[in-house]
Amino acid sequence: MTLKIGLLGCGRIGQVHARSIKALEGARVVAVADALPEAARALAQSCAAEVRDVDAILAATDIDAVVIGTPTDSHFDQIMAAAKAGKAIFCEKPVDMSVANIRACRDVVMRAGVPFLTGFNRRFDPNFASMRARIRDGAIGAVELVTITSRDPAPPPVSYIERSGGLFRDMMIHDFDMARFLVGEDFVRLHAVGSALVDPAIGAAGDVDTAAVILTTASGKICQISNSRRAAYGYDQRIEVHGAQGMLRAENQLESTVELATDQGFRRDPAQHFFLERYEAAYLAEMRAFLQAVTTGSAADPGIEDGLQAQILADAASLSRETGQPVDLAKG
Amino acid sequence: MTLKIGLLGCGRIGQVHARSIKALEGARVVAVADALPEAARALAQSCAAEVRDVDAILAATDIDAVVIGTPTDSHFDQIMAAAKAGKAIFCEKPVDMSVANIRACRDVVMRAGVPFLTGFNRRFDPNFASMRARIRDGAIGAVELVTITSRDPAPPPVSYIERSGGLFRDMMIHDFDMARFLVGEDFVRLHAVGSALVDPAIGAAGDVDTAAVILTTASGKICQISNSRRAAYGYDQRIEVHGAQGMLRAENQLESTVELATDQGFRRDPAQHFFLERYEAAYLAEMRAFLQAVTTGSAADPGIEDGLQAQILADAASLSRETGQPVDLAKG
Amino acid sequence: MTLKIGLLGCGRIGQVHARSIKALEGARVVAVADALPEAARALAQSCAAEVRDVDAILAATDIDAVVIGTPTDSHFDQIMAAAKAGKAIFCEKPVDMSVANIRACRDVVMRAGVPFLTGFNRRFDPNFASMRARIRDGAIGAVELVTITSRDPAPPPVSYIERSGGLFRDMMIHDFDMARFLVGEDFVRLHAVGSALVDPAIGAAGDVDTAAVILTTASGKICQISNSRRAAYGYDQRIEVHGAQGMLRAENQLESTVELATDQGFRRDPAQHFFLERYEAAYLAEMRAFLQAVTTGSAADPGIEDGLQAQILADAASLSRETGQPVDLAKG
Amino acid sequence: MTLKIGLLGCGRIGQVHARSIKALEGARVVAVADALPEAARALAQSCAAEVRDVDAILAATDIDAVVIGTPTDSHFDQIMAAAKAGKAIFCEKPVDMSVANIRACRDVVMRAGVPFLTGFNRRFDPNFASMRARIRDGAIGAVELVTITSRDPAPPPVSYIERSGGLFRDMMIHDFDMARFLVGEDFVRLHAVGSALVDPAIGAAGDVDTAAVILTTASGKICQISNSRRAAYGYDQRIEVHGAQGMLRAENQLESTVELATDQGFRRDPAQHFFLERYEAAYLAEMRAFLQAVTTGSAADPGIEDGLQAQILADAASLSRETGQPVDLAKG
Repeated sequence: MTLKIGLLGCGRIGQVHARSIKALEGARVVAVADALPEAARALAQSCAAEVRDVDAILAATDIDAVVIGTPTDSHFDQIMAAAKAGKAIFCEKPVDMSVANIRACRDVVMRAGVPFLTGFNRRFDPNFASMRARIRDGAIGAVELVTITSRDPAPPPVSYIERSGGLFRDMMIHDFDMARFLVGEDFVRLHAVGSALVDPAIGAAGDVDTAAVILTTASGKICQISNSRRAAYGYDQRIEVHGAQGMLRAENQLESTVELATDQGFRRDPAQHFFLERYEAAYLAEMRAFLQAVTTGSAADPGIEDGLQAQILADAASLSRETGQPVDLAKG
Repeated sequence: MTLKIGLLGCGRIGQVHARSIKALEGARVVAVADALPEAARALAQSCAAEVRDVDAILAATDIDAVVIGTPTDSHFDQIMAAAKAGKAIFCEKPVDMSVANIRACRDVVMRAGVPFLTGFNRRFDPNFASMRARIRDGAIGAVELVTITSRDPAPPPVSYIERSGGLFRDMMIHDFDMARFLVGEDFVRLHAVGSALVDPAIGAAGDVDTAAVILTTASGKICQISNSRRAAYGYDQRIEVHGAQGMLRAENQLESTVELATDQGFRRDPAQHFFLERYEAAYLAEMRAFLQAVTTGSAADPGIEDGLQAQILADAASLSRETGQPVDLAKG
Repeated sequence: MTLKIGLLGCGRIGQVHARSIKALEGARVVAVADALPEAARALAQSCAAEVRDVDAILAATDIDAVVIGTPTDSHFDQIMAAAKAGKAIFCEKPVDMSVANIRACRDVVMRAGVPFLTGFNRRFDPNFASMRARIRDGAIGAVELVTITSRDPAPPPVSYIERSGGLFRDMMIHDFDMARFLVGEDFVRLHAVGSALVDPAIGAAGDVDTAAVILTTASGKICQISNSRRAAYGYDQRIEVHGAQGMLRAENQLESTVELATDQGFRRDPAQHFFLERYEAAYLAEMRAFLQAVTTGSAADPGIEDGLQAQILADAASLSRETGQPVDLAKG
Repeated sequence: MTLKIGLLGCGRIGQVHARSIKALEGARVVAVADALPEAARALAQSCAAEVRDVDAILAATDIDAVVIGTPTDSHFDQIMAAAKAGKAIFCEKPVDMSVANIRACRDVVMRAGVPFLTGFNRRFDPNFASMRARIRDGAIGAVELVTITSRDPAPPPVSYIERSGGLFRDMMIHDFDMARFLVGEDFVRLHAVGSALVDPAIGAAGDVDTAAVILTTASGKICQISNSRRAAYGYDQRIEVHGAQGMLRAENQLESTVELATDQGFRRDPAQHFFLERYEAAYLAEMRAFLQAVTTGSAADPGIEDGLQAQILADAASLSRETGQPVDLAKG
C-alpha cells in the first residue's frame, strides 16, 4: 500500500523532501501547495502530483500524511488542522517560534495520536547517527563532555535574521537538538555568550553571528556548542564526544578525497559548502524514518517533544546572551 | 527530446545503469532484454519499459541507443549489430576478450559514425576526475611517476576467474585505463609480475591474485600498478601522481567520517567495501556523459579506442607475467 | 661568556631544565639545591655542578641566574631573594598560589630590573608557536573564536589535588595562558562549570575533574576551554583558532606515523602520553628563550605579568564554578 | 666501563654520530681523524677528544671501536685494518662500491669475530621499526606486497652523482635494505626502470633521477620501490606493507601538527625536508644499538651481510635498468 502525501511548501526544502519521497518505495506525493502558484506547478509536475491549496490538502480524504515546509509562522495552524484531520505530520524545524504554541501543538498531536516527526535532519546524518549508535553500544563509556562546532560558510541576509528569531533559534537550534540526542540527559543550566564579529549589521539588528554556549546536566555532564556565521573553508559541522573510555569525533565531509602536495604543504579540499549537499543522505534517511514510523505505527523520532525542548534551549540561550547570566532550565 | 534507450543485460550492472538513466533528465529506458526472463521482467517493471529480445531491440526503430551490460562474449555481435543499425552504444568493459575483435568493432563503429562509450567508470569518479583536471591545469607540473593501488575486499569465485581472462584482463584493466587517463602518453614497455598468495586455487587455475606492473612511456614517465584480490579494510582504490612541482593523491572513501579514540589509538572506519557504493557517483556521471555525447554529437570519452588500448595492455601484462620478460608495446 | 646557573629543585622538572641547559650553548649549571640531599647529589653529578643550599645559591656571587623548580610554596621567598640579589629568574608556573603574592613579586622584580621568565612551556611548543606566528602574519584574519582542549591521560592522586589549588589553578592555568597568548586581548568576563566525573574522591576534596570555561574580550572575541583529567587515548592537547578568513588547528602528536588497516578500519597510534615527551621540544626552546633574554637584555616572554594574569583567570574560574555565576575580570 | 671510540671522518655524518655518542651513556669519543685538519680539530674540541691520524686510531690500544664516516673509497682499507686490530666497527653505507670488496671485508670481519654494524639508519627509525615489530607480531598476517616510496627534496650536484655509483647505489640502496628488513625473505628476481626527468645533466652523466623497481621472492611476495630526486613537498619517506589480514603504512613526518583551513581547503605543513632532522631519532637509536651490541657481545644488526646484500641488489638494479631486462639474483 502506498502512503499518499500532501506537500505544503514548494521551496528549496519542499523540493528536497519531494525528491526523497520519489527515491523511496511506498509513498508518493499526491498534492502540493505553495503561496507561489509557479513554484507549486513546477514541483507538482516533477512529482506527477496535483496542485491544491493548503486547506484542500488538509481536508482531503485521499491524503494520509503532510510534509510541512512552509514558512515557520504557518506551521501552527497547519499542524493543528492536520492533527485534527488525523494526518501524519512531518514538520520542518522550528515547529514554531513560541514555546507556548509548540506546547499547544504537542497536546493536540498527542490527543490525536498522529505520528509527528520534527525535521532535525542532522540526527539522520550517517556520521552522527553512527556516533550515537556507538555511544549506546558503549564504545566510549559514559559520556562526559560533548563539543559541537557549527559554522555556516557565510551569513544570511540581515532581513532573514530579523525574522528568524536570531542565531540561537535558527542556527544553534540544530546543535541543541544534537546535544540532547548525544548526551541523553536533560540539561539543567545553560550559559550563552555571543558577538557580532562577522557583520555589524547583524549586531545592529539585535542578533549575534558568533556564539558559544555551555550546557550542564544534573549529573554533571557538560556540552559546549559554538557557532559562527562564517567559515572560509566550507560548511563546518563537527562533533566530538568525550567519554570515560575514549572519544568519538566526526570530521567534515570534504569536496573530494584528493590531496595536493606542493612546497606549500599538503592541501585537501574545502568542506562541502552547501547544506543540501552535506546533508543529502540525512534528508533521505529522515524521510525514510518518517515513512517507516507512519507505516509501522511506531513513534516518530525526533518527535514534537524534541522540537519543543530544542526551542526551550534556544529561548534560554537568547535570554542568557542578553542578560549575561546563566539560565536554569525547568522541565516541560 | 527524450533519448530512447534499450538496455541489454539486466544483471547487477544493468540495474545500475537503469537507475542512472531514471535519475537523469532527457533519456528513458524503452526496452530491456536478458537471457533470464525474470530478470528482464523485474527491471522492465521498475523502469516502466518493455521486455523485448536482444535482436528486437537492436532492430527497433524506436530506440536511439543501447546500453550493453551482457556477458562479455555477447558484446561483439551486439556492438556490430547496433553500429550497423546506427545506434549509439554504451558498452561495459571489457569490450571483448580479443584485441582483434575489438579492432574489428572499432572499425565498424568508426565507419558507422555512432557514438561509443566504453564503461571505464573510474574515469568519472569525482576524485579521479578532479586529479586529471588538476594535472591538466598544471597543479603539479609535468607528470613523472604514477602509482595506482587497487585491491578488492575478497577474491571472486575461481569459476569466475576461469572465464574472466584473469586478473590483468578483468581487474587491472581498470588501472591500465586509469594510467592512460592520467599519464597522457602512450606506454611503450611493460613488465608484470604476479603470484597466487590469496588462494592457491587461483594459481591452480593459471591466474594470479597479487600482481605488480611497471609501465614506461617513450619520454621516460613511469607508472606502477599493484593489485590484490584481498584487502581486509575494504575496497582499496588509491592513486598517486608525482610531478615536477608536486604530488596529487586520492585516498579511499571511508564508511563514515567518524573516528574513535581509545587506548588503542585513533580508529577510522574501513573503506567502503562494495564497488557499486564506492563508484555510485561515477556510474551516474558516466551515464550523464554518454547521454551528453549522444545528444550533442561530441565524441564519447572514453571511446572504443580506449577499450582497445587497455585490452592491449592487459594482454601484454598477461604475457609478461607468464614469460617473466618485459613486453614492448606496439601502437594501434 | 658562559651564563652560570643555580638550579633550585632537583625533581622531575629540575632535571628537565638541567638537561636543556646541557644541550644548549652559553650556559652551565654551577650549583643545585634540593630538600632531598640524594636528589641534589644525583643531579649535581650529572651536571658536574656543586650541591649547595638554597640560601647559598641565592647569595652566591658566582651565579648569574636561578631556575626555580621547587614546590610552589617556596617560590615567593626565592623570587624575592633572587630579585634582590640581582639574579635573572626562571620560575616554574604557578608563580604563587596567591595573586597578592605574585603582585608583590612582580613589583620587586620590576624594581630590581632582573629578567624573569614564567615557565609556561606550551608557548614554546613548535606547533603552538607556529599558530601564533601565523595569526600575527594574518593567515586567518582577525581572531574570533578560540577552542582549547586539554585532557590528561589520568588524574593525579587526590593528595596532589588537595594542595594544587584545584583543576583551574594547576591544569587549566596553562590553557588560560595559551588563550591570552593566542587571542591577544584581555578577557573581561569568564564563566566556568565543572564536575567530578572521573573520580568521586576529587569531588569529595572540593575539586572538579571535568570542566569548561567561556571567556570573552571587550571586542567580543570568544574563547572556549575544556579540561578533563582523563583521556584513554593519550595526553590530549589541541587548539583551534577561528578567524575572519580561516581556521588554524593543532592536532595531537601521535606515538608514531604508522597506521594499521584491518577489517576494523584504519588505526593510528595513541597520542604521546607523557607531558615531558610531548613538550620535550618546548622545554628546550623555553630554556633557550630564557638564556637569550638574559644574554641580550631583552624582556623575557612570558614574564611575571603573564604569570599574574593567568592566576587571576584561574582564581576567577574557581570562583565562577563555585558560585555558578560569571565573573567580571578587572585589570591589573 | 666506558667504550672508547675512534671516529674516522668528521664531516656531516661524523658529527651526527659524535653527537649521538655524547648523548648516550657508556661510550665516549677518544680520538677523531679527518683529511681536513680543521674539521678534525673542530669535532675533537666539541667531543673533548684528540685529533689523531687514521692509522694511529686503527693501531691504538686505547680504542675499542671505530665509527667509519669517511668517503666510501676509504672504507675497505679501514675495515680491513680495524678488523685485524680487533676493533668493533660501525661503518656507514655503502660498505664499498664493489661487491667483491664487501665479500672480502665480510670474510675478514667474520674471521676476526669483531662486531660490525652497517649504517642503514632507517631500520632504526621508530616508525619503520614499529612496522617491522608489528609484522613480526602478526598484525597483518603474512606479508604479500610491500611498496616503498623515497623522494629527495632536490637532486644532489651532478658531480656527486658521478662518483656515487648512481641512484640505485647511493639512494635506493636504503630502500633495498628496507625491503629486505620488512619482507623477511630473499629476493630472487628484480626488474628496474629509470629516467632522467629532473635534470638532463643527470642523464648525460649516465644516471637516472626517477626510477621504479619490482622485486620478487621465491614464495611470490612482491616489493615495489620508487625513487625520485625531487619532491616539492619535502623529504618523502613512506612505506606500505600489505598482508593477508591487513595493511601497515608509515606516513611522512610533517614540520608541525598545524593545519590551516581557508577557502583553498585544509593545508598541513610540508614533510620535514632535511634527512638529518627526519632521521634524528633513528641515528641516535642506531648508535645505541651499536654500543649495545659491542657491550653485550650480541650480533650487530644490520651486519656486514646486510650491507653486502643491499649492494648486490643495487648492482642488479643498475644492470637491469641498463639492459632493460630482469635480473635473476643468486645468493651469497
